[in-house]
Parts: sequence; C-alpha cells; structure tokens
Amino acid sequence: MPDKTNTRKYGFTLPAQEGMDDVVVELAKRWGADAIRDSDGTVLSDSITSLGYEIYSTLCLIRADQEWNRAHPEDNQQKFLFSEPHVARAHTIRVDILARYSPEQYRIDEINDCKKYWEVINRTTGEVVPVADWDYADGIVTVRNCAPWNIYSVNFLVFQIWETTSMYNHLTNNWGDKPHQSGVDPRKKATREHLARFLDKWLETHPGTDVVRFTSMAYQFPIITNPAHETLYQDWYGYLDCMSAQALDEFEAKKGYRLRPNDIVENGYFCSTDRVPGRAYLDWIEFVHEFMVEWSKDCVRRVHAAGKKAVLFYCDHWIGTEPYKPRFQEIGFDGIIGPCINGREVRRIADVPGGLVKELRLYPYFFAVDLLNRPTFQEGGDPVADCKRYWMWIRRAMLRKLVHRIGYGGYLDLAVKFPDFIDYIEYQTKEFYGICENTDFTPVENAPFRVGIFNAWGQDRSWGYDQSWPEGAIVESLSGQPFDLVWLNFDDIRGGIAKDIGVIINLGLAGTSWSGGENWKDPRVVAAIREFVDQGGGFLGVLDPTACENGGAYFQLWDVLGVQKEVGLSNDTKKILPTDEVDGHFLLADSANGAPDLGKHVEGIYPCVASAEIVAKDAGGSVTIAANKYGKGRGVYLAGFKFGAEQNRLLQRALWFAAGKEDAMPKRWFSANIHTEIAGYPETKKYIVINNANEPQTTVITDGKGNERTVELAANASRWFNDDGREIT
Amino acid sequence: MPDKTNTRKYGFTLPAQEGMDDVVVELAKRWGADAIRDSDGTVLSDSITSLGYEIYSTLCLIRADQEWNRAHPEDNQQKFLFSEPHVARAHTIRVDILARYSPEQYRIDEINDCKKYWEVINRTTGEVVPVADWDYADGIVTVRNCAPWNIYSVNFLVFQIWETTSMYNHLTNNWGDKPHQSGVDPRKKATREHLARFLDKWLETHPGTDVVRFTSMAYQFPIITNPAHETLYQDWYGYLDCMSAQALDEFEAKKGYRLRPNDIVENGYFCSTDRVPGRAYLDWIEFVHEFMVEWSKDCVRRVHAAGKKAVLFYCDHWIGTEPYKPRFQEIGFDGIIGPCINGREVRRIADVPGGLVKELRLYPYFFAVDLLNRPTFQEGGDPVADCKRYWMWIRRAMLRKLVHRIGYGGYLDLAVKFPDFIDYIEYQTKEFYGICENTDFTPVENAPFRVGIFNAWGQDRSWGYDQSWPEGAIVESLSGQPFDLVWLNFDDIRGGIAKDIGVIINLGLAGTSWSGGENWKDPRVVAAIREFVDQGGGFLGVLDPTACENGGAYFQLWDVLGVQKEVGLSNDTKKILPTDEVDGHFLLADSANGAPDLGKHVEGIYPCVASAEIVAKDAGGSVTIAANKYGKGRGVYLAGFKFGAEQNRLLQRALWFAAGKEDAMPKRWFSANIHTEIAGYPETKKYIVINNANEPQTTVITDGKGNERTVELAANASRWFNDDGREIT
Repeated sequence: MPDKTNTRKYGFTLPAQEGMDDVVVELAKRWGADAIRDSDGTVLSDSITSLGYEIYSTLCLIRADQEWNRAHPEDNQQKFLFSEPHVARAHTIRVDILARYSPEQYRIDEINDCKKYWEVINRTTGEVVPVADWDYADGIVTVRNCAPWNIYSVNFLVFQIWETTSMYNHLTNNWGDKPHQSGVDPRKKATREHLARFLDKWLETHPGTDVVRFTSMAYQFPIITNPAHETLYQDWYGYLDCMSAQALDEFEAKKGYRLRPNDIVENGYFCSTDRVPGRAYLDWIEFVHEFMVEWSKDCVRRVHAAGKKAVLFYCDHWIGTEPYKPRFQEIGFDGIIGPCINGREVRRIADVPGGLVKELRLYPYFFAVDLLNRPTFQEGGDPVADCKRYWMWIRRAMLRKLVHRIGYGGYLDLAVKFPDFIDYIEYQTKEFYGICENTDFTPVENAPFRVGIFNAWGQDRSWGYDQSWPEGAIVESLSGQPFDLVWLNFDDIRGGIAKDIGVIINLGLAGTSWSGGENWKDPRVVAAIREFVDQGGGFLGVLDPTACENGGAYFQLWDVLGVQKEVGLSNDTKKILPTDEVDGHFLLADSANGAPDLGKHVEGIYPCVASAEIVAKDAGGSVTIAANKYGKGRGVYLAGFKFGAEQNRLLQRALWFAAGKEDAMPKRWFSANIHTEIAGYPETKKYIVINNANEPQTTVITDGKGNERTVELAANASRWFNDDGREIT
Repeated sequence: MPDKTNTRKYGFTLPAQEGMDDVVVELAKRWGADAIRDSDGTVLSDSITSLGYEIYSTLCLIRADQEWNRAHPEDNQQKFLFSEPHVARAHTIRVDILARYSPEQYRIDEINDCKKYWEVINRTTGEVVPVADWDYADGIVTVRNCAPWNIYSVNFLVFQIWETTSMYNHLTNNWGDKPHQSGVDPRKKATREHLARFLDKWLETHPGTDVVRFTSMAYQFPIITNPAHETLYQDWYGYLDCMSAQALDEFEAKKGYRLRPNDIVENGYFCSTDRVPGRAYLDWIEFVHEFMVEWSKDCVRRVHAAGKKAVLFYCDHWIGTEPYKPRFQEIGFDGIIGPCINGREVRRIADVPGGLVKELRLYPYFFAVDLLNRPTFQEGGDPVADCKRYWMWIRRAMLRKLVHRIGYGGYLDLAVKFPDFIDYIEYQTKEFYGICENTDFTPVENAPFRVGIFNAWGQDRSWGYDQSWPEGAIVESLSGQPFDLVWLNFDDIRGGIAKDIGVIINLGLAGTSWSGGENWKDPRVVAAIREFVDQGGGFLGVLDPTACENGGAYFQLWDVLGVQKEVGLSNDTKKILPTDEVDGHFLLADSANGAPDLGKHVEGIYPCVASAEIVAKDAGGSVTIAANKYGKGRGVYLAGFKFGAEQNRLLQRALWFAAGKEDAMPKRWFSANIHTEIAGYPETKKYIVINNANEPQTTVITDGKGNERTVELAANASRWFNDDGREIT
C-alpha cells in the first residue's frame, strides 16, 4: 500500500483505467508510481482512487460542461481565419470564406457585426476594401469594385465548434459518432461565472482527487484543419484561439488602439512564432496573458480552498499562462507538467522559474498511433525502441536540469499488451530515480561561463525552436551540454551583454524570429555584440546569424564571424580570399573523418576578412565551419547542424573555443569518447557517465579533480561514481 | 590577290603581325579572310597593309596619346570607390581609403574638393557624417565623433592612372616595365578638343586603314583590382568608369538633382547589373549615354569624312554607347564587333537593331592564356578543343540570327605554332560561309509565337544575364532555340503584354534585376501577366520567378505557376498538397531517364494550388519542374537549369507547352534526336541539320512541309538540304 505522506522529492504518475485495478497495483509497484491519473477518454473508478495513491484528475474547464457550451454558442471560442486568396477575374467576386476550413471545426460568426470585426483586403495592394464595397450572406462575401486580377481575401471571425484537443483525440482514436465537444471562452462573463461554479462543484464531487491537473486552462495553441481534417496550420506558441469580438473591444480600451484583424491574420502567416513579432502581436500576447493570470489565479484559489493541489499541463490550452513570464508565479500553481519526447522538452519544463513540482509526461503516449500517425501500441509498432530513443535524449538533458516526476498518459490496456515495454519502463524509472537520489536535485557543475542564446523572443520561448531544420537539432544538443544557458531577446542585449556570459549564440534562418530579422539594423544590437566579443566574449552564429541586408552587408556581424553570405545580389563582387581549410583545428579534434556531416546547410558562405579560419567547406566550396579572431574574442560560424555524437562534440568545442577557454575543456568533467558524457554534482560529490550509443563504449573520463580514469559502459548504460572513483551500485 | 570590291555579304578578319607577311597571305587564303586587323600590342607593317586586304585598325582614343594624358592628369578618368568598411573602436578613426585598391590602378583625387564630392557614411545607421566631422590628408580620412562599434566607410573619387584594358593585357602578357597607359575623359573640354585633333591627324596618317575599329569609345566597364592585382569587382554593364567631378556637376544641371556618391557606390555593391536599378542609376546611365551619343557621333563623322568606315567594338570601353537604345543609331557606326565565346554572345551582336555590319571576335584569343588564366596557345593548352566547344554553342545560335563576319584577335605568331588549330579554323570558316550562302541572311522560320523574356532591364541588356548559375545556361539554350525572342522590362508589360507574344519568361534569383525584386509589388505587373495567361498565354518561371514578399505570398504569381517557395518564414503553414509526379508528361517526353539534371537548383518549392502538375521533384521533395493550367493559358516552373541536350529539349518543350501549342511542335522543323537541331529558311528553300554532339548521330527530321526523313550526321557535323530533300554539298 503506497504512502501518500512519503517524503521522496520525486515520483511517477501512472495512467489508470477502469476495471484494471490489479494491473495498476502491479505496475505501480514495478514502476515505483506514487500517483495515478486519468486521461482524456478514461475514468478512474472508485476502486482505483481508493487504492491509496495520490490521485491526479485531468480537468479541462472550457469543455467540461458541454451542456452549458451548447446552450451558449455565443460564448464558444473564436478566432480569425482568412479566406482562400481569390483572384478577381471580374469587378465583382463571391468568396466562399470557409471553403478551405473544416466546417466541423468552425462556424462563421454571424452573431457579431461583420462590418465592424471583419476585413476584406486587396492583398495585391495591401489596401482594406471599404465596407460599403462588400457584403456577407450565407457563408459568402461578395466584393464589388474589385481591381481586376488583383487578389482578395477576407479576414473573418469564426466560432470554434469542435475543440482542438478533443477533435484530435476523437479522430486519432476513431470515436465515430461520439458527440463533438466545443470550448467556451472564460472572457465571457456568464461563462466565467458558470465555470467558477462548475469548478467548485467539481472539487466538491471529487473527494478522491488530490491534484487537479488542468489540461490546460482556456486557450489551445492553434491547429487549423481543412475539410479533409488535414492540418493547415499549427504553432505551439500561437495566440490565435484566444480571440473574440469582446476581446478586440477590451484590447482597444486597455491598450489605447484597435487591433486590425490582419494584425493577427498577418496575410495568412498568422504571426507564426518563426516570424519576428510586431508590436501589435506582442501587445496581444500581453493582453491575453494579463487576463489568463487573473482567471487562472481564481481557479487555483478555488482548488486550494478545496484542499487540493493545482498543476498546469504546459501544452494544449496553455496559451496565456506563459510560465516564463514573471506574472505566471502569481497564479500559484503547485506544479507544471509537460509532454516530453526529447531533451529540449525536458528543459522547457525543468527551466521554468519558481519552486513548482515539475513533471514530464513521456512518450510514447499509450495510443495506437503516435503524433505522426505511425503505429505505436499496435501491430507494427515498437514502443520500446521509440521509448529508448527518446530516453537517450531525455536522460542527458536531465543531467543538466532535473525534474521531479515523470509519467505517462493514455490507455493502459494498450500498453500492457507489450510486456517488453513494461520491462523497459521499470528500467527507465529506476534510472530516473537514481539520478534523483544521486544528485538530490543539487546543481550540476557546468563550464565556468554562461552561454546566452538570443532571438526575437528570449526567455518567454525558452527551448522553443520548433522548426525541425536544424534549429531543433542544435537546441537539442544544447539541452544536454555542460553549459548554463540563458535565453535572451534583443531588448536584453541592446544595452550590452551581461558580464557572466562567455558566449552568445544566434541561430536561425534569415528573417526568422530566431535569427532576428530587422533587429539587426539596430546599431545598439551590433555595437553591443562587437564590444562584447572585442573584450573577450565569443559569438557563435549558426545558419544565417545576424542576417539582414543593411549598409552593404547581409550578415551584419561579418566582421565578427569572418564570413559573409552571397545571396545572388553581389556576384559582381569577387570573392578573393582563399578558402583553404586549416589543418588540425581545435573544433575538429574529435572528428575522425574530417568535419562531421552538418546535413542540409546554408550555402553561399565565403570568408570576408583575412583573419577568418576556414575549418570546413562543402563540395561546392561554400564554407560550413569557420572561426575568426576579433579583438580579444572570437566568432565561430556553423552553416548547419545535425544531431549526433560528432556534431555534439563539435558544438561543445565551438562554445569552449568561442569563449577562449578551450584549454580548460578537457581538464574537468570531460569524457573523451564522443558517444559518452559525464556530469558531476559537487554538493553530493557524485558523478555519472552515460553512454548515448546503442553499442558498448569505453571512455577515459576526467573527473572534477582532474583525475583521469577509464570507464566501460554497456550499450545505452549509465554508471554512477563517488568523487573518489568508487562506483555507486 | 584579294579584291576589296568583293560583293560577298560576309567575311573574315585575320589578326596580323609585323614580319609575318607570308603567313598572313597563306592563312588569309585558307581561311577566306578579306580583312586584316591589328591588336593591342601589334602593329601592321606597310608591307601587310599593302597586301590588298581591307585593313581594320584598332583605335582607342582615350589612351592613344599618352603624352597628352601624362600632361593632363586632371583629365584622367575618374570613379568613385569606397574604403574598406572600418569598425569604430574609438570615437576617432583613421581610414586608409585606398588600402584595398591597387595603387597602380588608382590615384586619390586631390584636385577636386573632397568635401564637395566625397561622402563619409556610417554604414550601420546609413547616415552621412557631417563634413565638419572628417578631414582628408595624405591618403587618410580621419573621422571624428564616431559612434563606437558602428561601421564607417568613405566614398571617394579617384583618378584611374592605369587604363583597364591595357592593364589586363600588360599583366596577362607580362609586359614588365613597359609604361602603364592611362585613359582620359572626353567630357573634359580640352581633352575632347585634343582627341578630335588627334583623330583627324590619325586618319590622315593611316591611309592604309579602311576601317577604324574603335576599341571602344571612352569608358570601360569596371574591373576594380586590389594591390595584388586580383579583381575585386567586375560588371560588364557597369557605369562606374564614366564618373568625374565635372560629370556630377553637369548631371545636376541637366537632371535637376545632385547624385550622391552612394547612388553609384551603393554601399559597395556599385549598382551591379544583377541588382534592380534605382531611378538615380538609370538617370546616370541615360546622362552618360546622351554624352556618348554626341561625342561618338562626332568621332564617326570625322572617320567618314576621311573616307573610312567606323566600327564599334562592343566590349571594353563600350559604356554609354548602348547599342540597344534608339539613339545608338544616330551615331552612325558602320559596324559593330563583339567578342564571342558562345551563343548568347552571338545574339548580343546579331540582335543589335539597325543595318550595321555585325562581326564576332571569336575565342580563343591568340594569347598564351585565356580570361581565366588557363593555358591556350602554349604547352598544356588545347586551342582546338576550346574552339570546337565554343563553335558548337555559336553555330546553333547563328542559325537563329546570323552575323556578317567572324574573326580572331591576338598574336598570330602564337597561333601558327598549332597547325591543327589552323586546320580547324579552315573548317570553321567554311561552315560559317556555308551558313551565310545557304541562308543568304534571310530569316529562319521559328515557332509561330514570340517569346518575351523580361527583367528589370529589358532590351537594353539583351542576352545580358552574366551570372553563371544558371541564368547563363538557360539564356545560352535560348540563343539557339526555334523561338523569336523579345526582351522586355517591367515598363514594357505594365500596360499589358503585346499580342504577338505567346510565352513570357521570368528568370532569376530572388531580388535580382533578372527576377525583378520590388517590381513584383506593382499591381499593374501582376494583373497584366494574369490576364495574359488567363487569355491563353504562357508563363515560364525559372529559379525565383515573381519573387518578392507581398500580401502573404513570396512568388507573387503562385496562382499562375502553381507552386510557392518556403523560405523558412511559413513552416507553420503546412504543405498539404500531394507532390506525386505525373507520369509521362509532355515536358519529359524526350528524357530517357526521368527528368534531366537541373544542376544546382532552387529549393523549398511546393505545390500551392490543386491544379498544379508536379513533373519532377528532387530527392528532398522540393519541386523542380511543374506545370499549371490557368484560365486558357499555362504556367510552367523550372527550379534550375544546366546546359545540355536533354535540358535544351526540356526548355523547348516547356515553351511550346506553355504556349498551349505542343501539338504543333513536332509537325514542322523538328529533329527527333535531342543532340541534333534543324533550322529552315523559307526564302532560300534550304534547311540545315546540325549535330551538337561529339559522336555521330542519326535523327529523324520533320521538314517545313511536314515530311519526315532520316539524317545521319558525323560528330559535330552539319548538313544542308534543299526543301526537296536533296543534300547541298
């Protein structure tokens, strides 16, 4: 019988299911679970909730009471969509505005005045069509006085009548004619009051629940689908689903200006997080956040009043809560949970400020298919292989920043059909508990300088590079590297770089929020970085760092990086500097066969200052790795990245080298074999060596005192040692 | 003995050299020469000029009288340069402005007031530094009150003290301490008057000269070199070397506004022809052209008055003459000569409007090395292989538009050491004369629709795509294709596309003058093309056609092309249309092994309308060839191009298909074997079949009457036939 009063700082959350009490008890024992949860589509029977485990109950208030939602269609959640761009072949055109969207997901807003809230735009000229020139009826906007052959589209409001997460779960699990659930907007007064009453009642009627697992609060990140249910648009950070006519009016009252529909629709780009945010969108985020802090605070207060804990699932309807913004702390959550498939998702939870209990909901989810619709818990699936691959990424990140809990979600009846999976989770949980016990949540010892990674978003979007090529790979690599990482935005560096930072990273494709776009035209930005590097700092640029045409330069910090990019606009300027690769460069000292494969990379890179060292170039002669001395500091450039052992080490070396501290790298906490890594915890006087590879490895490690020793590791294994070298078993 | 009064419409110009009279006579006979020329560095002896051939004498007025040039350093030609960008590490910086340039080529202008004519720019902010904040002395500009870590550079005037062509020839031929020649500027009154006197005198003292071959008039296209004589910048169309303090003042008087130095320096990009020209640069071109028309007219008048002919070498100092602008005809040249290494250089001369005699100066030039410094007429060189390769490109272009004369240049004593080269030129000249005789300069019969190729330059830069990747290759292919080609600029299409045009082509990298850049934001441009295609026209887009972010689209004519490009700013918008390749598409009907290699190509291309046909894609899934129906017309997209037989045929098919006339393609003047081509001349009732390959080929041709027959061709051979199918031997 588990003991709810256990004092362990760590734990495991087991998804349970009605009628599986024996299995739950057995698995809880084998996996060390101290908490039981339900999932969307599962119910915990009284027999389970009374087993003595801590009970996590999921609660999604905005779709919890479908009866209310059906009775208040005017309070369904809203968003702006744009109609398919329409070529004006005549002076009058008729636009079927919802044609490209799922009519199951959206209903056109015929309640609020379209002439007030919508916009018809000539996208060729950018002009807004006068409201007198268009009308709406029966799903069709008729536009008159069109300029022939110009392109028109309508930014219009819809109600979302099928809530995104339940729609996903419904379609993924083939729930057939089970009724579609909608979501309501707590910004609406009647609904907000109803939800408060509902929550109080729910708390009262769930005496067995210890922890309310909000999944999540109000607004989902956008997943927009077409009539065939294909995803048209998805942005984990997108502030689209928090829109409403009322919110627009309140925004105007609060911020002093009116948002245009196109401030959010952005000609169809929807202010994707990959794009440099404009003032209006940032104001909109802040406006929604302000509301969500207040409303969430009220919900948490009610949970606490009922003697329960409140935790936030940092996914699905997380929009507006903003765990990295200071006011998140006001809400008072007891914990935060994130879905986690890799190292950067570990860090997205682990790095959240404040003293919350942090938990990872690991993958694979106990569904028959995964997010990419590949088989998992069914014939053709291999959940152990999936889980092991994820765990190799997750484990190394945990060594840098640990969370308190792990767990799974979904349908236990699917998982138990895979006994090898049950075995593997037993191994995984033991390895996790070992990390918790041996580190006791004390800090790892990283390199003696901090690394700042900066983009247009900064800390608010920590670990948020969600493009797959190759920002994700490099941030993934960083999630387990021996560096204290800080996330900065351009405002954070305009006035100068903080003293404790040794290297700053700018990473992204040209024009994106990650590279920074027009921010690079700000003299304060380039001056701050030049001064920082000149005084001994390091600057690592990846892909299109500092890219923004200005004053005769494309990479604005060409002088620091030592390289420039030819985009086809200066071919008449001849590239005369030699591109001979330097031999035996520090950056490549661990690469057995020349420079590691950087995968698909940026091309057209050439040296532009005589001091540039060409470390590697591609078959076409475009530089892929370069280094440059700049005052007392250094610039390093990488044209691409790919996750792998050689590449991880290249990145590690690049950061030490950029910091001008490459001599110190191998002297403490260093593992010579690139498939292995080491992490040391001075406060507990213990260290761990891990093998990321699927084959056994031998490595020579250097411990925190500078002592070397050889360590053998089985495939994927980890070994713990005391600081005197004795193994901890 | 040759007969100067011969009535042949065609001829050959032989470069002669003092002391080689016998060789000249023998080669003239073998090669059918009717004219003899000198070259830079060679002199024609009286014995040669009296042999009875027409005598071409090169004359470059601006460097013909070095004594005058030395006595008038203030009249040396000028240009704007920019200093190396300089990071302000302190409030006061000292910039060695000429440091990055060859001091042998340039001397800083210390004659004209630098405070009036120069500019110091903060290139970080774009601001011009107040003249009070800088001073010039002894090659150094001292800038005060700098913003630390901003970048400064100086736009300054120099005199060019070593004339570009003579510098190139001097260095290429190792002329050692032979004195450097300078050039003077005819805009200066005293010099202009002197040059007129000099020309009159020269004409008087060269009684043996029949044709004055101006090489060329006044202003060279820029070749800027560094202290190591490496080329820093080169633009065959660049208007940099026609600058002077006086010209700036006259420009202001004439155009009503003052040019800023940076209007020409353009932050170091120097208004490269690859860049979309701004108003100021276009005005500057027009201003120089106006002067050059007047001055050239005066020179030609003097030549005619002396009973001689005047021809223009359309290279070197051609700037300002502008053979494709209407006022060029006013000058009165009798002929125009162009260097020619390939088909598009054939067409650049052959397509010049007006009734001038057109001549090609073929390659290899009789120098020991070629333009890329590879051996030609020396050990290790293979001038026959070079010449044959060029001739395969040249011959096919000539079948579309013929010139009157060919010839060579350089040092005959080098060429005669290669007897196989002497033999090959005999073959080449015979083949050329055969084309002249069998066509009698009557028009070839091309496809029954015109093809318009348009960019920011239009007709003025006909055949001028000088980027090598892959604009050059596709324009090269077009130079010999069976289509009447017209060159258009954006002004030519804003009001609509001419009725006789069947297909228009937009070809170039994003943002370049060739693609068009910001021109694509003009609603008149996109509307005109949409209407044209909708009504049955064709639009062929290559690389980044219509590329310019606007209104939610990157390729502005995505609706016509059927494809769009992802540049990393809309990854959250999912690409849901299938990219399955259609089977057996007309475009690929001659490609034995799938789509031909398009070499390095544009990536990130995806279908964006349901009607798009994916004809080919690359290994990463990016579309490389696509077609789309649009109203009664079609759009076709190519992501790249590479010169070759399969690719030529692909392009040919793309144009017929875009025009909606693919059924007509094989019915007349068609050769089935892609290594061969056919050209028919209705007026002379003859046709030719050529083999572009180095191996023998068999083909089935369809003649102008639709009759098919099989033709065998030896490697590289051509065969002429009468319209009844009898061979002409």
